[in-house]
Amino acid sequence: MLPLAQFRQFIEQHQLFAKDDKVLLAVSGGKDSVLMLHLFKAIGVNVGVAHCNFNLRGEEAQRDEHFVKMLATSLDVPVHITHFDTKKYAAENKISTQMAARDLRYHWFEQIRSEHKYECIALAQHQNDAVETVLINLVRGTGISGLHGILPKRGKLIRPLLFLSRNEIETAVAENNIGFVEDSSNLSTNYTRNKLRLQVIPHLKEINPNLEKTFEENMARFAELESFLALQVQELADNLLIKRADGIYISLLDIAALRPQKLLLYELLKPFGFVEKVVDAILQRLTSPSGTHFFSASHQAIINRKDLIIAPQNTADHLNQFIHPSTANIRFGDDEIALTFSDELKFEAVANKAFVNADRLIFPLVLRNWQNGDKFIPLGMRHLKKVSDFFIDAKVPLHLKHTTPILVNGNGQIIWIAGMRQDNRYKLTATTEKVAIFELKK
Amino acid sequence: MLPLAQFRQFIEQHQLFAKDDKVLLAVSGGKDSVLMLHLFKAIGVNVGVAHCNFNLRGEEAQRDEHFVKMLATSLDVPVHITHFDTKKYAAENKISTQMAARDLRYHWFEQIRSEHKYECIALAQHQNDAVETVLINLVRGTGISGLHGILPKRGKLIRPLLFLSRNEIETAVAENNIGFVEDSSNLSTNYTRNKLRLQVIPHLKEINPNLEKTFEENMARFAELESFLALQVQELADNLLIKRADGIYISLLDIAALRPQKLLLYELLKPFGFVEKVVDAILQRLTSPSGTHFFSASHQAIINRKDLIIAPQNTADHLNQFIHPSTANIRFGDDEIALTFSDELKFEAVANKAFVNADRLIFPLVLRNWQNGDKFIPLGMRHLKKVSDFFIDAKVPLHLKHTTPILVNGNGQIIWIAGMRQDNRYKLTATTEKVAIFELKK
Repeated sequence: MLPLAQFRQFIEQHQLFAKDDKVLLAVSGGKDSVLMLHLFKAIGVNVGVAHCNFNLRGEEAQRDEHFVKMLATSLDVPVHITHFDTKKYAAENKISTQMAARDLRYHWFEQIRSEHKYECIALAQHQNDAVETVLINLVRGTGISGLHGILPKRGKLIRPLLFLSRNEIETAVAENNIGFVEDSSNLSTNYTRNKLRLQVIPHLKEINPNLEKTFEENMARFAELESFLALQVQELADNLLIKRADGIYISLLDIAALRPQKLLLYELLKPFGFVEKVVDAILQRLTSPSGTHFFSASHQAIINRKDLIIAPQNTADHLNQFIHPSTANIRFGDDEIALTFSDELKFEAVANKAFVNADRLIFPLVLRNWQNGDKFIPLGMRHLKKVSDFFIDAKVPLHLKHTTPILVNGNGQIIWIAGMRQDNRYKLTATTEKVAIFELKK
Repeated sequence: MLPLAQFRQFIEQHQLFAKDDKVLLAVSGGKDSVLMLHLFKAIGVNVGVAHCNFNLRGEEAQRDEHFVKMLATSLDVPVHITHFDTKKYAAENKISTQMAARDLRYHWFEQIRSEHKYECIALAQHQNDAVETVLINLVRGTGISGLHGILPKRGKLIRPLLFLSRNEIETAVAENNIGFVEDSSNLSTNYTRNKLRLQVIPHLKEINPNLEKTFEENMARFAELESFLALQVQELADNLLIKRADGIYISLLDIAALRPQKLLLYELLKPFGFVEKVVDAILQRLTSPSGTHFFSASHQAIINRKDLIIAPQNTADHLNQFIHPSTANIRFGDDEIALTFSDELKFEAVANKAFVNADRLIFPLVLRNWQNGDKFIPLGMRHLKKVSDFFIDAKVPLHLKHTTPILVNGNGQIIWIAGMRQDNRYKLTATTEKVAIFELKK
């Protein structure tokens, strides 16, 4: 007998798809995917079959393709077949054959799904695959997110066979006289999985013959804990991460009060791509001077007085630069800005220099690109003006708007649109004691 | 060279002991414990050595004992030695030889520690032991608490060698020409550990040669997550668990709102001994009628109107019983109590019956044993009296104090010390419309 009741229950429990959804089944012809096809047919779901011929195994691949075609036809199920030049794709993209097959396969499944209006794509992974995944993650190093195994549903991919172990699949196939081809096309069979499957897991099953079921329970617990952590971290992020124009602020005091500190800061910064080692470094350098930078692939984190500021490393923009009283020269893209101080109350009316009331400066200053919402009071005027309007009025070409350095005070006020106009609030007055001279050098 | 800097750092990082503490080292004579002894001596800690001869391996055990004695003497370290009749102890207690050795050993270590004023007991477990522990827990089934491996410090036990892998210990022993006896006395070498050590872990190390260090990082992450969960659950418990005289209350609405529900209810109820399957059952039956019971080895959880009440299964006491308006008879230990209602305003002055103003009853009533702090207003009196004083005045023997059924109203007030005296607040008055008659039948 086919395990139909369990199959239905698993689909329902994880809400894999709705009653009338069309489901695309990935069928290699091996016993796992063939059993999946029979299960879907037996409970009357509207399905189609997708089969990839990777042209990697010559006649065997032809045999598998033929088998799947015949099987689908005999079950009156639409079948989609494709051929890939996997080796060529791998060579072109400098990836392994296995990775190439994976890329090609998922990309094509999604294409067929979307073209033929299937709701989701069903893959025949089972409990042993999930056990292997957990062990691989553990052996390679992981946090809690590596312990949930294979999820029954992720985006458009569903795994409706995760309630069965490999042995149970073999039994069901044998008992129901289900024909299949030997699964040498199993693309997930790589070195590490094979080693675990053949050399490790059999020993673990001697310790616990119910290993797959035990791991299923383990994984369910870890998935729950993972979702708990995610909820808590979301709440923490809502409370501690403050969005401002120039980045996301998190107070250093709040970071210092996190318990447990490393786990929570890591989880808070993970969405910005920061890895564990960098989070360690941030924690060790919380008392570093303003301007200390840390980087992820996509973002930077900057210690700025009482905050850690997280900002994208926008590839179009330049990195924000901090200017300290001791800064003499600072590069900003192709530009360079020099800072000198003077006690002499005089100025020159040239666009490439700003003569600024140094008494009003709050260091570190920030040198950054234009941001949406920027306003300043152009020298000689009395009211705030949008910088974008100023650019329009000054007929600044669009690309320059995004590269013009803008000098910003520690309180967020704009001091100078470098090379164009300084802010009225920072002009020299009769009472100015110290003059900061900024010079833009192209 | 001995890895002294790492050793010191590990001790400091985990605050294993203070500078001037005396430490008792468990030394079998094997390479792990002998290296530990040398490390402790090299950094100048005040140590003593404890060695157990389990009389399980004849001459080899004699050899080991002799070796440890000579080594300690040569290093000028006090040595404590004992002999156990392990087989006899195992037989008497019907446990395995291995478990017997473990019991005897820890018990004796603690005895020596306390007698000779050692601060703590150092065990020579290393990273591979920790890796094995995690794998054993995973294979047998675990939640997050099974993934922290072996803790560096737990009570009076410390594991100062957890920063070293087995290979590193072997290298240190060889490089420093440290003598040791072959570690066939390693008591932790049981079937499961041996299988993992010899048949599983070598394959995992082929996948990741740095397995022990990777697991050390994994375990540190899991320990952090575990402590985070513990903190959050403690906060939740502080908010949701309400201590009352008859047990700890948690609102069913609060249970229904927990996210993720199973994990958090399990963690909240774990301190009361409830296992996962029972927590599942509670969640499936949250809407069951009042009085539905669930049990752990030590506690009961009872659905009572809008709450789940958790109360100890005091072996001396009887279980709390709930009385509903529809309850006719209820057993309480050896006693039985019958409930009838009457519209007739009359009563009998007999000790085995209480005639109660039913208008004031809040169902379900609870039938329970005496609890510390119980007070009531004896019929005919005006002030609250401690039930314990009432028992003393009435010359009730101590054992009856703990078995006498006490009838308690839904608001927590005592209605009746069954068979002895009812509460003045529940006596019949001129305006009573309905009478509840409780009869105690021995």
